[in-house]
Amino acid sequence: MTAQVIDGTAVARQVREDVAKGVQELLAAGGTAPGLATVLIGDDPASEVYVRNKRKLCVAAGMQDLHRHLPGDVGQEEAAALIDELAADPAVSGILLQLPVPKHLDSEALLARIPAEKDVDGLTAANAGLLAQGRPGLRPCTPSGVMVLLDEAGVSLQGAEAVVVGRSVLVGKPMAQLLLERNATVTICHSRTRDLAEVCRRADVLVVAAGIPGLVGADAVKPGATVIDVGIHRGENGLHGDVDTAAVAEVAGSITPVPGGVGPMTIAMLLANTLEAAKVQQGRGD
Amino acid sequence: MTAQVIDGTAVARQVREDVAKGVQELLAAGGTAPGLATVLIGDDPASEVYVRNKRKLCVAAGMQDLHRHLPGDVGQEEAAALIDELAADPAVSGILLQLPVPKHLDSEALLARIPAEKDVDGLTAANAGLLAQGRPGLRPCTPSGVMVLLDEAGVSLQGAEAVVVGRSVLVGKPMAQLLLERNATVTICHSRTRDLAEVCRRADVLVVAAGIPGLVGADAVKPGATVIDVGIHRGENGLHGDVDTAAVAEVAGSITPVPGGVGPMTIAMLLANTLEAAKVQQGRGD
Repeated sequence: MTAQVIDGTAVARQVREDVAKGVQELLAAGGTAPGLATVLIGDDPASEVYVRNKRKLCVAAGMQDLHRHLPGDVGQEEAAALIDELAADPAVSGILLQLPVPKHLDSEALLARIPAEKDVDGLTAANAGLLAQGRPGLRPCTPSGVMVLLDEAGVSLQGAEAVVVGRSVLVGKPMAQLLLERNATVTICHSRTRDLAEVCRRADVLVVAAGIPGLVGADAVKPGATVIDVGIHRGENGLHGDVDTAAVAEVAGSITPVPGGVGPMTIAMLLANTLEAAKVQQGRGD
Repeated sequence: MTAQVIDGTAVARQVREDVAKGVQELLAAGGTAPGLATVLIGDDPASEVYVRNKRKLCVAAGMQDLHRHLPGDVGQEEAAALIDELAADPAVSGILLQLPVPKHLDSEALLARIPAEKDVDGLTAANAGLLAQGRPGLRPCTPSGVMVLLDEAGVSLQGAEAVVVGRSVLVGKPMAQLLLERNATVTICHSRTRDLAEVCRRADVLVVAAGIPGLVGADAVKPGATVIDVGIHRGENGLHGDVDTAAVAEVAGSITPVPGGVGPMTIAMLLANTLEAAKVQQGRGD
């Protein structure tokens, strides 16, 4: 392997430490501790693990854990009422509805009730619009985590050719907006792209968020490029991403591993968003 | 000239005729005529001409002209109150705040008061978010007019390489989203793009909305490409676009002229949006 490995675990730890410092500064300035309301509906074991991790790191950063749990057979109205209650509660800085919700519920309608200023996942249409228009707002956690990784790795974005593979609302589309905001020339690829490898080879910065294991091989990478792998898949030999890491690492200039790359950044940015939301709500925004 | 000329004047006339037909169908079905409230603040001569054209074509399509004019020295609160009044008025299907407003007013704050469902210009953050997330909403008029031109010219977008030059909130950014929605592989270029001609030469579909006269020459166009020129500039010899039309027409497969290309589409799509808004508000949406 010749590529520099971008250590997401270390960067995420640093972000969480910075958030913890920010919480202390907020308290010292007479503010109150940010509160994160994770909302779990039902008993999906994977969702339980995700929520537990978020709550644990929230507490470790000095924030209030305002977790709420609803039974899996809860009705739409009752779930909506809980979101409304959290929206109105001044102790709640951020609301995170853990997805997926049980199939009988309308998750979009529930998300739409989260006020933009408490939408710490950055998933509402309101925050997507602010991002699209380049206006201040809470950004989706995974793509904003990628931006921090690129900055920490010293990657120059101004005028760079950036290629994003995948156009999900969660990652690909906001990722493209964030790269554009930093003056990259941005291309978005997807399943209908004619020659994916050819387009990817143009990239100085390649972000792969397609959800297909090993989609991007060495033939799709320009020598020296920075490759960010957002995918995570459980295979026979452990976790893998959307990138054939071993092969690509022989070509790329730097690369994120899976696990230990983008993954840890998502929760770190959730905490950073919760602190930012609390500061704005308490009249101490930047 | 070897390129096919895309006749925006004719396509815009067809769109307006279709809107007029839609209005008659709405009335025949027991609905009421859509109402467009153009809001002009002050006496800028260019703005007066634009608003007069919109009102004239609105009436010609069988819609109600609900124009409002405020003096140039109106205060922010009074202007906001007018927007609120129009927002609450069921006869008003669409609100168009003519920009620019006098400098002492905060246009973003005024635009933000327009309800998403009456935002027939498609400029609010709410509609930008719906577009970014691929959800139904009112789309900005100029880029949606470009999409109609591409369809009328029989341009295939699926898997095509589309390049957008310019990243404005009004045109470039929503243009990229609309092309992506139609499964093109989309690249956005801008002033910081390193080699603009090189990137543009990849395009099967090139949309130029940079606001720089003659920015794109023949060296930036792949033989046979479709070139859409959104620019409009008044020069010594009449109107010109962002594209060196005479030179590019020798290389491109098809091209929009200036004037008579994208220009006429903007008002046509405004009328189409107003009809669509009225239908949704009257419970007759598609």
